[in-house]
Amino acid sequence: MTTQTHHAQARVRYLEDLQVGERFKSASYLIEAADIKDFAGHFDPQPFHMDEDAARATFFGGLAASGWHTAAITMRLLVTGPVVMAGGIVGAGVEASWPTPTRPGDVLQVESEVVEITPSRSRPDRGIVVLQSHTRNQQGEVRQLMRAKLVVFRRPADADTID
Amino acid sequence: MTTQTHHAQARVRYLEDLQVGERFKSASYLIEAADIKDFAGHFDPQPFHMDEDAARATFFGGLAASGWHTAAITMRLLVTGPVVMAGGIVGAGVEASWPTPTRPGDVLQVESEVVEITPSRSRPDRGIVVLQSHTRNQQGEVRQLMRAKLVVFRRPADADTID
Repeated sequence: MTTQTHHAQARVRYLEDLQVGERFKSASYLIEAADIKDFAGHFDPQPFHMDEDAARATFFGGLAASGWHTAAITMRLLVTGPVVMAGGIVGAGVEASWPTPTRPGDVLQVESEVVEITPSRSRPDRGIVVLQSHTRNQQGEVRQLMRAKLVVFRRPADADTID
Repeated sequence: MTTQTHHAQARVRYLEDLQVGERFKSASYLIEAADIKDFAGHFDPQPFHMDEDAARATFFGGLAASGWHTAAITMRLLVTGPVVMAGGIVGAGVEASWPTPTRPGDVLQVESEVVEITPSRSRPDRGIVVLQSHTRNQQGEVRQLMRAKLVVFRRPADADTID
């Protein structure tokens, strides 16, 4: 399930269009048991991500998504979200943590805030934007915290629109 | 392609079996253009991860895997690797960066080092292990750097073998 939210602001942003303190809210994404097992089968084949019965006896106490699955869904929600960076969402580095595990039936949504904007000294056409994102389920439980450094470009001289 | 490497040491480790400075090397994993596009279609649908021609005009100068795809493959290589933690590889938090993009034809391999072991004060049955991992291709180019905090359990009183 992907519910698009609508925003008045322009979707594509250059470095100079962003402001510290700006917040964006993504669409939402339903994750089901079959999705959890499918991702885990490819990338994180551990019992607590693969099988309800085996998961019960583990740290997680039941089927839980791989943290990398939550991270990948978060990326999807950012990329398809109301605001994207000119040139795309390109991560230079990231910190992530998973305060609670993502469960089957979770409807995930990402809220992001621009917390830092640093123009590059050596490359005047770009800068680094630090974006802090909370991925929550429909009950508001935080499933992932992320702080990402993104490479964002300035508007080139020949671009006169921002969308 | 997954080439299993063989190691003499026991595969499953409890907290007290790990030592700072220990290193592990994973099997290897070939990533092809179709894999890159498939992952991106699900989780990171941006032109530089989806289409060779569109990718040429971007920051990446050619088709490149999503950083989250490199991270997910790294997880697979850790989970199926020569050493796993008792109770599984459970990440409390992670820092990752992608110094160079993963390209079609890369054969990825992960080398990890235990850099910190901190027994929990409040929960005597476990501790936090910091594992630093380099994901490199067949030419030794570093595609991902990762520092992960893992929850690792002590050997329970009734366990008398480590494998």
